[in-house]
Amino acid sequence: MNVSDIVKALTPDLIIDHSLADDPDIAGVAAVDAANATQISYIEGGKFASMVETTAAKALILPVDEVLQQKATARGIAWISTKAPRLLFAAVIKVFYTPFRPAAGIHPTAVIDPSVVLGEDVSVGAHVVIYPNVRLGNGACLLANVVVYPGVEIGDRTLLHANCTIHERAKIGKDCVIHSGAVIGAEGFGFVPTPQGWFKMEQSGIVVLEDGVEIGCNSAVDRPAVGETRIKTRTKLDNLVHIAHGATVGSNCALAGQVGLAGGVTVGNNVLLAGQVGVANEAVIGDGAIATAQTGINNKVAPGEIVSGSPAVPNALYRKVSAIYKRLPDMYQTFRKLNK
Amino acid sequence: MNVSDIVKALTPDLIIDHSLADDPDIAGVAAVDAANATQISYIEGGKFASMVETTAAKALILPVDEVLQQKATARGIAWISTKAPRLLFAAVIKVFYTPFRPAAGIHPTAVIDPSVVLGEDVSVGAHVVIYPNVRLGNGACLLANVVVYPGVEIGDRTLLHANCTIHERAKIGKDCVIHSGAVIGAEGFGFVPTPQGWFKMEQSGIVVLEDGVEIGCNSAVDRPAVGETRIKTRTKLDNLVHIAHGATVGSNCALAGQVGLAGGVTVGNNVLLAGQVGVANEAVIGDGAIATAQTGINNKVAPGEIVSGSPAVPNALYRKVSAIYKRLPDMYQTFRKLNK
Amino acid sequence: MNVSDIVKALTPDLIIDHSLADDPDIAGVAAVDAANATQISYIEGGKFASMVETTAAKALILPVDEVLQQKATARGIAWISTKAPRLLFAAVIKVFYTPFRPAAGIHPTAVIDPSVVLGEDVSVGAHVVIYPNVRLGNGACLLANVVVYPGVEIGDRTLLHANCTIHERAKIGKDCVIHSGAVIGAEGFGFVPTPQGWFKMEQSGIVVLEDGVEIGCNSAVDRPAVGETRIKTRTKLDNLVHIAHGATVGSNCALAGQVGLAGGVTVGNNVLLAGQVGVANEAVIGDGAIATAQTGINNKVAPGEIVSGSPAVPNALYRKVSAIYKRLPDMYQTFRKLNK
Repeated sequence: MNVSDIVKALTPDLIIDHSLADDPDIAGVAAVDAANATQISYIEGGKFASMVETTAAKALILPVDEVLQQKATARGIAWISTKAPRLLFAAVIKVFYTPFRPAAGIHPTAVIDPSVVLGEDVSVGAHVVIYPNVRLGNGACLLANVVVYPGVEIGDRTLLHANCTIHERAKIGKDCVIHSGAVIGAEGFGFVPTPQGWFKMEQSGIVVLEDGVEIGCNSAVDRPAVGETRIKTRTKLDNLVHIAHGATVGSNCALAGQVGLAGGVTVGNNVLLAGQVGVANEAVIGDGAIATAQTGINNKVAPGEIVSGSPAVPNALYRKVSAIYKRLPDMYQTFRKLNK
Repeated sequence: MNVSDIVKALTPDLIIDHSLADDPDIAGVAAVDAANATQISYIEGGKFASMVETTAAKALILPVDEVLQQKATARGIAWISTKAPRLLFAAVIKVFYTPFRPAAGIHPTAVIDPSVVLGEDVSVGAHVVIYPNVRLGNGACLLANVVVYPGVEIGDRTLLHANCTIHERAKIGKDCVIHSGAVIGAEGFGFVPTPQGWFKMEQSGIVVLEDGVEIGCNSAVDRPAVGETRIKTRTKLDNLVHIAHGATVGSNCALAGQVGLAGGVTVGNNVLLAGQVGVANEAVIGDGAIATAQTGINNKVAPGEIVSGSPAVPNALYRKVSAIYKRLPDMYQTFRKLNK
Repeated sequence: MNVSDIVKALTPDLIIDHSLADDPDIAGVAAVDAANATQISYIEGGKFASMVETTAAKALILPVDEVLQQKATARGIAWISTKAPRLLFAAVIKVFYTPFRPAAGIHPTAVIDPSVVLGEDVSVGAHVVIYPNVRLGNGACLLANVVVYPGVEIGDRTLLHANCTIHERAKIGKDCVIHSGAVIGAEGFGFVPTPQGWFKMEQSGIVVLEDGVEIGCNSAVDRPAVGETRIKTRTKLDNLVHIAHGATVGSNCALAGQVGLAGGVTVGNNVLLAGQVGVANEAVIGDGAIATAQTGINNKVAPGEIVSGSPAVPNALYRKVSAIYKRLPDMYQTFRKLNK
C-alpha cells in the first residue's frame, strides 16, 4: 500500500496537508525510533521531534510544523500533517491491522441453557458456559471458556475475551470489551461484624456497564447489597482494577492499572486516575479531575482538580512538598540547633 | 410480603421494638436514598438520619432512637428498631434475596478423575476439571470451568465460583467461598540468586483455608517451599489480594481489595487491613490491629494498634503529620530565612 | 532416605563439608522451627542461628561456621555445610519433592485447530482451547482450561497452568512458566482522547517472553500498539503484576507481587522491584537497581541505585526522612514559635 492509498483510507478532516515524496510502498506501522523504510510512523513533537532527522521511516505523520515538514521533505520522507498526530496514527494502525475476532457461530462444545436468548450473528466459542435466562445482543462475541451466570444481559457487538466471568444479572451495554480474566458482577465484600464473626450481607444488587465500556484483564467490578454499581458510557478500565460494591464511575473516564475504588465511591465524568490510585469508601471525585499515580483519595476531589499523594493534596502543593522532602534532614538539623 | 411478615421472618433477639403503621406490602430492599414505597431500607444514624424525613420507603430499620422513630411514625412509615441496623438489614436482604446456587448434580461435560471422592449432593458444573485424588465434601459446589489440581480437599458446602483454580494439595475447609478467578495454592515466588540466574526453590508446602474463609475475585494465595500458608476461620479476603508463601492470617480478619502480604507474614485475629495495604516479609501484626488504606507495614504492629502511612506509624501521629504536610512549604521558607 | 543418600544426590560443588552423625533416615523437608526428627532443614545464620540448639530436626544444612557445626554435632544432628545454605536447601527440596506435571498426551476434550503445530511429547489438558496457527514446542504442557489465541508460539518445555490465557501472536520462549489466571499479550490500554470520547488505538504489536521467564498468578502483560513488550531471559514476575504495553524488562529481574509498570517503561537486568512498586510511563531503571516496597518511580533510577518512597528517592535519604517524619509535629511546634 502506497502513502497515497493511506491518505485515501483516512478520514479527510483529520488531515491538514501531506507530501507524497516518491509515494513509497508501506507495509506496516512502527515507533519512530524502530521503523524501517517500509513502515509509517508518527512524531507528536517534543522530545521525539529530532527523530525526523534520524528515523529510517519513509513515511511520517507530523504535527502542523513547517520546520519538521521541511526536514522530512529534505530527507525524502513522505508525510501527512495533522493537529492530532497520535489520533491519526491510531487511524493508520487500523488501516494495517485488524484484531482477531472469531466468526459468528456457536461452537458445539459451548454449554448454553435453552432459556438463553441469542441475537443474530453471535459468536460463542469453545467451552463457553451460559447459565439460564441470559440475553446476548446481535453480534455479541464470547471467546473460549467465558462463563456467564444467570440473568445477564449483554449488548450488541460486545466482546468477552477468553476466561472472563460475568455474574448474575449484570447488564452490559453495547460495544463493550471485557478482557480475559475480568470478573463482572461478583458479590461485593459485604460483611457485618458480630460477636460470632462476620455476618454476610447478601449482595442483591447488580452491576451495570453502559455502552462502550472496556474492562481490563483480571479486573473485578462487584455488585452491591442493594442498588447498582455503575460504569457509564465509554469509560475505560485498565488491568487489575478493583471496583467495589456500589461505586459509580462517570462517562469517558480512564482508570489505569491497579486502581482500586472502595465501596460507594462516586467518580464524575472525564476523570483520569493513574496507576495504583486508591479511593476510600464514599469518596466523591468531580468531573474532569485527575489523580496522579499512587494517590490515595479519602474524601472529596473538586471538579477539574489535579491531586497527588496519600492522603491526596493538590498536585501543585504535592510537587512543592516533594521537593522539600529531600531537604528534611537539613531542616531537622536546623530544628535541633534551634531547640538547643 | 407485609412488614408484619418480615418481622416474623427475623431472629427476634435482634429486634427491640417495631411499629407496623398500615403494615405496607414490601417487595424488596433498597438504600434509604433510593428506596420507593414498596421497599424497606435502613438508617444507622449519623449523616443518614435526616433521610427519615425524605425517604420514599414505607418501611425502615431504625436504631434505638425515639426521635427517629417518632419522625418515621409521623410520616406513616413502618419501622423496626434494633441496636444493629446494618446487621438487621443484612437479615432482611436474606428474606428477599437468595444468591444463585446451581442444583446438585454432575454436568456431563465435567472431567473428573476416577480417583476423586465426591460427597453427597455435590454440584459440579460444566467444563469443570478435577485432577486425581481430590475429595469434595457434602454439598460442595463447583461452578463452570473451575479447575482442581491433584490431592486437594474441599470441605462441606464450600462454593467455588466459575474460573477459579485450586492447586495441588490445598486443604479448603467447610463453608468457604472462592470467587471467580481466584487461585489457591499455586507455587510461591521462591527463587534463590546464583551467578547463573535464579534457581527455583520448589514449593513443597500447602495452602490451608480453614472453615468459613472467603477469597475474593482474582486473589491469589500461594503455597510455601515447606510448611503451610494458612488462613484461619471466617477470615474474608476481598478482590485482587495477594498472599505470599508461608503467610499466616488469623481468624475473623478482613483484608480489603488489593492488599498484599509478602512471604512469612503473621497476621493475628480480628485484624482489618484496608485497601492496598502492603505488608513486608516476616512482619507481624497483632490481634485486633487496623491498618488504613495504602499503609506499608514492614515490621511489627502491636495488638489493637491502628497504623497508617508508608512506612506505617501510629494513626494518631499519621494524622498530625498529614496535617503538617501541607504546611511544609511555609516551614521551609522559615528554615531558609533562619539559615541565612 | 538417609542423610548419606541426600549428600550423594546433591551437586558436590555446593558442599563444603558434612557430618553424618548416626545417618538418620529423613522423610522430608521443613522450616527449622517446625521440623521433626524425620525432616531436614537449614540455617542461614543470623536470627535463626540459635535454633540449632532447639530444633527437633535430626539433619541440617549449615553455613560454613564451626561453632554452629559443633553445636549440631553435640546434639547428634547430621549436617551438611555450604556457602549457600538456602540454595542447597532448594536442592534438597528437589530431592524429596517433584511438582505435579501431567503426562504427555492430548485430552479428548481439548479443542485444537487443525492448523496448530504440536511438538513432541506435548501435554494438552482437558478443555484447553487452541485457536489457529499456534505452535507448541516439544514437551510444552498446557493444563486444563488454558486458552491460546491465534498465531502464538510457545517454546519447548514451557508450562501453562490452568485457566491462563495467551493472546494473539505472543512469543513465549523455552522453559517458561505461566501461572494460573495470568494473561499474556492482551491488547494494551491505548486510547486517544477526542471530543467524542476515547478513540481506540489498536494494539498491533506483540508480547515476547524470552526463555526461562515466569509470570505469576493473575498477572497481565499487555501488547503494544506497535513493536513489542518484552521480558528477557530468566526474569520472574510474582502474582498480580501489571506490565503495560511497550515495557521492556531485562534479564534475571524479580518483580514482586502487585508491581505495576506503565507504558514504555525500560527496566535493566538484575533489577529487583519489591511488592506494590509502581513505575510511571517511560521511566528507565538501570541494571541492578532495587526499589523497596510501594516505591513510586516516575523518572530514572541509576544502575545499582536503591530507591524508596513515592516519589522515589535514594533509600539512604528515605530512611533519614522516615525517621524525621515522626518528629514533624515537634518541628512544627518550633516553627510556630519562631513565626511568632
